[in-house]
Amino acid sequence: MFYTIDILGTIAFAISGVLVAMGKKMDLFGILIIAFVTAVGGGTLRDLLIGNTPVFWMEDMTYSYIIIASSVFAIVFRNKINYLRTSLFLFDTIGIGLYTVVGIEKGINAELHPIICVALGTMSACFGGVIRDILCNEIPVIFRKEIYATACILGGVTYFLLSELPIEDNIVFVVAGVVVITTRLLAVKFKIALPTIYRE
Amino acid sequence: MFYTIDILGTIAFAISGVLVAMGKKMDLFGILIIAFVTAVGGGTLRDLLIGNTPVFWMEDMTYSYIIIASSVFAIVFRNKINYLRTSLFLFDTIGIGLYTVVGIEKGINAELHPIICVALGTMSACFGGVIRDILCNEIPVIFRKEIYATACILGGVTYFLLSELPIEDNIVFVVAGVVVITTRLLAVKFKIALPTIYRE
Amino acid sequence: MFYTIDILGTIAFAISGVLVAMGKKMDLFGILIIAFVTAVGGGTLRDLLIGNTPVFWMEDMTYSYIIIASSVFAIVFRNKINYLRTSLFLFDTIGIGLYTVVGIEKGINAELHPIICVALGTMSACFGGVIRDILCNEIPVIFRKEIYATACILGGVTYFLLSELPIEDNIVFVVAGVVVITTRLLAVKFKIALPTIYRE
Repeated sequence: MFYTIDILGTIAFAISGVLVAMGKKMDLFGILIIAFVTAVGGGTLRDLLIGNTPVFWMEDMTYSYIIIASSVFAIVFRNKINYLRTSLFLFDTIGIGLYTVVGIEKGINAELHPIICVALGTMSACFGGVIRDILCNEIPVIFRKEIYATACILGGVTYFLLSELPIEDNIVFVVAGVVVITTRLLAVKFKIALPTIYRE
Repeated sequence: MFYTIDILGTIAFAISGVLVAMGKKMDLFGILIIAFVTAVGGGTLRDLLIGNTPVFWMEDMTYSYIIIASSVFAIVFRNKINYLRTSLFLFDTIGIGLYTVVGIEKGINAELHPIICVALGTMSACFGGVIRDILCNEIPVIFRKEIYATACILGGVTYFLLSELPIEDNIVFVVAGVVVITTRLLAVKFKIALPTIYRE
Repeated sequence: MFYTIDILGTIAFAISGVLVAMGKKMDLFGILIIAFVTAVGGGTLRDLLIGNTPVFWMEDMTYSYIIIASSVFAIVFRNKINYLRTSLFLFDTIGIGLYTVVGIEKGINAELHPIICVALGTMSACFGGVIRDILCNEIPVIFRKEIYATACILGGVTYFLLSELPIEDNIVFVVAGVVVITTRLLAVKFKIALPTIYRE
């Protein structure tokens, strides 16, 4: 079940990488790299910071296969992919929900402080997109206008609040993920964004 | 004592991150991330390259608290922060002095060659700013016009020259740090910069 | 023998870094860092992802000495370096051939899947240039128009195909490297590039 969600998230992230890379007129190799980095970049950074090496996608080939297949699909159907926009948005949103909670649990296993665990969860979910934007020479979009990281942080806080209560671990896991997903969906539906801040 | 300096340096680095991020009209989350990266990025790279994981700020929450508090302060008083410019410059300069020497000592503990230790020290002090500039889509400022890294390198060389002599470790530590600080202060006061080099 | 090629590759990579950095009007320190990153960045990323720390250039000073000497040479003779263009191109091409195969063998030693090993080899050969371009605020050139990574991937596939046959390890090593080198030379000679892909 979690594995299925993980795969859906990976598909959505890889395709978002392909779309951004095509917008920059990259060649086939560039597109594949951007797809890969978008899909696994956040988890890779998490694993490096904890010291969990070789990093996760080196030891489970499923990620590589999914990313390559999704990229080929997105390239072939590039002029029709708009029809899938809603599905991709949903996959992506469900993906960040899962990645956030998985990142938190990796932090807990490494016996890190709750705040650091929430940071790791957010990083797992968001930094693939950050690295994608840096490689494409853009200021990362999540630093500017999306309730994306904020959703992950809220989910992370929920996780630790609930785990203080006598609730089963699986339920905590699911509820925290659902908080991430719901926050993001509501923010997009009602066009809520964090304020940008600048000096007068 | 060293801990106090470390905290002053962290404050100065975090605030410099906030100021750059506000200049790019980032949102609250983006600003916090840039503050964080500027403050701990150099030491994180150092720890990753040596293999010292989980990296330092994951195991000592002081850094996270200081960075969050400094960022909130800088955001709230963003239109008045110019009054603190001199203090911040001093904290920053003292901070790089300390970070350089701490980085060198981590290299020595990992039994690395003196040149590599100096590189690690310089990296600890300077790469937070480099990562900040990359995330903000700028060519890193220290590659272009500041005597910043050069001060760290001079301090590092001093460290190894002095440690050949029969001098106590603590004194070597302090003198090397002071060389970094003095070089940077003099360079700024007399507007000394490295030459830029280009082809005719 | 392999060591000589490694040194020639390091020289070519460092000088390519110097040339790009001078094009951006960087100062002396910036130029040295870019030279360093171009020369060792790919292998550093490889070592970090596998968990092979301290990373390779921290434990063998040859790399640092070669990079510093090559950079000084390139800076001093910056207005005459065009005469060496062909030699540098050859060194660079031979370098990526070697780095690809070395990267693959590190992956095999870490007992990783062949596809991951090919990815590690390609990364070792190509990501120095990617990090160079990011630090110089450019979209990495290999994502846009060079048969560079593709040559590495072909060499990697050759490596694994040949190692299925009853052929000596050394010969597999050399043939795979030669495939990388030949592919790149032919691609440049006949101006072959991967297609760029974009949406209508």
